[in-house]
Amino acid sequence: MIGRLNHVAIAVPDLGAATAIYRDRLGATVSAPLDLPEHGVTTVFVELPNTKIELITPLGDASPIASFLARSPEGGVHHLCFEVADIDAAAERMKADGARVLGDGRPRIGAHGKPVLFLHPKDFAGTLVELEEA
Amino acid sequence: MIGRLNHVAIAVPDLGAATAIYRDRLGATVSAPLDLPEHGVTTVFVELPNTKIELITPLGDASPIASFLARSPEGGVHHLCFEVADIDAAAERMKADGARVLGDGRPRIGAHGKPVLFLHPKDFAGTLVELEEA
Repeated sequence: MIGRLNHVAIAVPDLGAATAIYRDRLGATVSAPLDLPEHGVTTVFVELPNTKIELITPLGDASPIASFLARSPEGGVHHLCFEVADIDAAAERMKADGARVLGDGRPRIGAHGKPVLFLHPKDFAGTLVELEEA
Repeated sequence: MIGRLNHVAIAVPDLGAATAIYRDRLGATVSAPLDLPEHGVTTVFVELPNTKIELITPLGDASPIASFLARSPEGGVHHLCFEVADIDAAAERMKADGARVLGDGRPRIGAHGKPVLFLHPKDFAGTLVELEEA
């Protein structure tokens, strides 16, 4: 079912410092920061030849990544995003298999403007997994 | 400098269960388990169209991922591996920039039979980074 690894999201406490690490230390191509107030994050995209790293930092008072950074104040990998062809079919498959879809269990529009699901880390070997309709 | 994301390594306490999650629940193509005694892990490769996930579990009494799993008993993303064209040049660049190369600071042969470096998470936004000569 899953296709490409769309991105690896890394939550960071200092977006400017993390961007400099990827741009200057590792020599990667990075985007300008993009505020996504409806998702509670500011994002910088690190463009690699085959996929993206997304550096994310909290935006606003109720960021969904605030609790992650409280537990991991230096930052770390927050989630992996895999592409799927049909998000509704993916949601049904997950539920039929007993895997927990976060939120109300239905796809919602994600940070790229496409429908996504987030899946419970305890059902995916300790990793928060996002599925995005490609 | 960095090129492709070669793989995302996920440390897991139960390799069979994690393999089943990726194969059966997520519908991905997975390899047979491969023991790498010189690296202290057993690995399953999850083949995606653009990159790989490597599921790793401890092998032997002195596995380098044992302490990670002691802190994160359900598993989680252990490291990201980026490809570089010249591992010796990468090592020099990291040291010149003040980034800590783990071990004795020199490239060694990694799990794929190619020279690699591991870089200190505190110098890379909280993420353990591996560089592998492509």
